Amino acid sequence: MEVKQSGQIFLVYIQKDEPVMETLTSICKNNEINNGQISGIGAVKEIEIGAYDLDSKTYLRKQYTKNHELISFQGNITLKDGTPFIHAHITIGNHDLRTRGGHLFEMKVGVVGEFIIRKIDSNAHRELDDNIGLAVWCLENQ
Amino acid sequence: MEVKQSGQIFLVYIQKDEPVMETLTSICKNNEINNGQISGIGAVKEIEIGAYDLDSKTYLRKQYTKNHELISFQGNITLKDGTPFIHAHITIGNHDLRTRGGHLFEMKVGVVGEFIIRKIDSNAHRELDDNIGLAVWCLENQ
Amino acid sequence: MEVKQSGQIFLVYIQKDEPVMETLTSICKNNEINNGQISGIGAVKEIEIGAYDLDSKTYLRKQYTKNHELISFQGNITLKDGTPFIHAHITIGNHDLRTRGGHLFEMKVGVVGEFIIRKIDSNAHRELDDNIGLAVWCLENQ
Repeated sequence: MEVKQSGQIFLVYIQKDEPVMETLTSICKNNEINNGQISGIGAVKEIEIGAYDLDSKTYLRKQYTKNHELISFQGNITLKDGTPFIHAHITIGNHDLRTRGGHLFEMKVGVVGEFIIRKIDSNAHRELDDNIGLAVWCLENQ
Repeated sequence: MEVKQSGQIFLVYIQKDEPVMETLTSICKNNEINNGQISGIGAVKEIEIGAYDLDSKTYLRKQYTKNHELISFQGNITLKDGTPFIHAHITIGNHDLRTRGGHLFEMKVGVVGEFIIRKIDSNAHRELDDNIGLAVWCLENQ
Repeated sequence: MEVKQSGQIFLVYIQKDEPVMETLTSICKNNEINNGQISGIGAVKEIEIGAYDLDSKTYLRKQYTKNHELISFQGNITLKDGTPFIHAHITIGNHDLRTRGGHLFEMKVGVVGEFIIRKIDSNAHRELDDNIGLAVWCLENQ
């Protein structure tokens, strides 16, 4: 993993076989990126994504082991239990260029991973919403 | 709906059952965000999206009533008839993680809606292009 | 093609029949945008996209001639052989709102092309990685 900082912006190159969410989260923690925005492209593998089922309050999950293009990565960073937490959704494409997508749990870089983190100067955090079953954004000042 | 501002950036949490385009547009109007950029993720329902048919100069439209993951939201803000106007395209995913996407008309939040608006200090506007049948970007100074 | 600059941000309107990658690359070169980020939406045609096959170290390529919605465009700009180079992945949607996506080689605007370039003040570059067969991000200072 390599990082290059320019003001509020961090270019992040995640290398083959490195875990994406774990790596990005550690960069946020090490650089005190409490709020922010992440985008990225590349090619990934051993992907676990899901869709939230509100009735059962659980994620339906699927795994994709082979290399897929990482077509879109939209993530945000907020504080959860006092530390930076990344929520990200991705679109992936197979070698027929067909797409799948959803909530990202984890994936590894399959070829290259090119990410851009933009730090935001605020301290929005998450708190559990019992009706939804998830920790949701709380934007009021604490 | 909750909003937290940090300089040019607005974190926006749109809650279950609230309309996304209507809510984001009202935030732009209230904060004089004449130009800008919007991204977002979450889970949405009662989605109407479409694709533009240049021959008939109309949008082909489809509705998706059930909850879908909001995998990607790319939107821009320009002035149309003197007020902020949002143009957005989205990718959604169903519970099999299959994706659909296109031009967004409107949708409601199904579980959570996490959006980030970045204000841009300019006044680009739209004007009708008769050949295309749409109000298109005009970037020259007025 | 029209461009409006606001500080580090460039709004770019690419018109019908103009090539997207060629146009964006020339804007980066003319404005010394060595590093940056690009997003965009619109409707495009004569699209060539692909997926990288690590075994053969070649891209599998497909063409889509008809108009498609440009649903997502995530691109980054780094230096390659001393000049700005754009790496972009896209999601496109047909008139049934079905999606395809992958690594973008080139496409033309079919209806409108609305892009936002954000310049980043750094000089990250690419160098060939023989194990991967691609020029990859190098983020250490030169």
